Amino acid sequence: MQIYDWHIAPNPRRLHIYLAEKGIPVTYVEVGQPDLTLAPWYREKYPHAMVPMLELDDGTCIGEAMAICRYFEELHPEPPLMGTDARDKAIVEMWEKRANEEGMLAASELFRNTHDAFAARGLPGSAEPVPRIPELRDRARARLDRFFRKFDAQLADNEFVAGSRFTVADATTLCGVDFAKWSDVTIPADCPHLQRWYEAVSARPSARV
Amino acid sequence: MQIYDWHIAPNPRRLHIYLAEKGIPVTYVEVGQPDLTLAPWYREKYPHAMVPMLELDDGTCIGEAMAICRYFEELHPEPPLMGTDARDKAIVEMWEKRANEEGMLAASELFRNTHDAFAARGLPGSAEPVPRIPELRDRARARLDRFFRKFDAQLADNEFVAGSRFTVADATTLCGVDFAKWSDVTIPADCPHLQRWYEAVSARPSARV
Repeated sequence: MQIYDWHIAPNPRRLHIYLAEKGIPVTYVEVGQPDLTLAPWYREKYPHAMVPMLELDDGTCIGEAMAICRYFEELHPEPPLMGTDARDKAIVEMWEKRANEEGMLAASELFRNTHDAFAARGLPGSAEPVPRIPELRDRARARLDRFFRKFDAQLADNEFVAGSRFTVADATTLCGVDFAKWSDVTIPADCPHLQRWYEAVSARPSARV
Repeated sequence: MQIYDWHIAPNPRRLHIYLAEKGIPVTYVEVGQPDLTLAPWYREKYPHAMVPMLELDDGTCIGEAMAICRYFEELHPEPPLMGTDARDKAIVEMWEKRANEEGMLAASELFRNTHDAFAARGLPGSAEPVPRIPELRDRARARLDRFFRKFDAQLADNEFVAGSRFTVADATTLCGVDFAKWSDVTIPADCPHLQRWYEAVSARPSARV
């Protein structure tokens, strides 16, 4: 069993944080290259061309960070990072999904439609060129602003994103906030609850893996 | 317990299919209006302003279709629609996520950036106007083409999207294919496996709920 990884990329970082919080040791295979592309042999092996990817000993390839977390969560339930009972599991999944679609995907949209290395890579995982769309930059900034405010409101009443304990929803939210910083977008000054949370989760050892 | 619903919308349909396959009866509250907006009282009650939303008897509001499915799956495990063991659950989650991000979100992007009723609603759930971006139409069409071909390849070797039984990955894929049809985008003629699957799942009683 091994995980194909691009260590600096925001999406695999969700999984790094998860595994560090669980204390599960894994073997990583780095497939990112200095020119910010995926190694050709990896694109050939795994045409979905995304990271992270977990290869099981039977050859099964599991892509998508949360699907990989689900695999480990089933085998190693403690400490629970994807919820405890039906209600709690649903709340964690809801907030993780919001953090991904409203935070991570918005930060990705801004970065991919701004940076020169991604001029023809407007979407992840596409073999054909996907030209950037400059209009998406402003829209992505507006999305990130809504993301910050929505999560600030949630964190006004909750220590962590999905309630009273650290979960995958925190991992994805942290990756979204830090990914936005790649494009110089930071937590607004009038979001004190999100800022308080950000400082707390950034200080956890898992955030530095 | 009740579910706030917009019966014609593609996203809640994933949940309708899920509940029909499970045989779980629920009470639906319709919040969609004839002018294709959400009822103001609902937007006030639930500022995330998305459907579907499950309100539990304790007042907890669970948004996001897959989070709601997760809630029911924990309470009613049979028949399993989100996987059986760690490996299978991960595979279902992986394909459901691909169907959502590569199919549903692409179809949504095409529809929202094309149809006049959504001229200022380029993204779901935003209280402020989000102008359409015409360049997204071509990009969304290209995304849908990749979606069709990726799932055609998967269905060449599998009866259902995530293997040998119907799961939530099929529900989301079906909703993505049918949502694309709203913008006159249909399965390419050279995707026979996807077409075979589409006819089979469309004939299930759950597809007609």
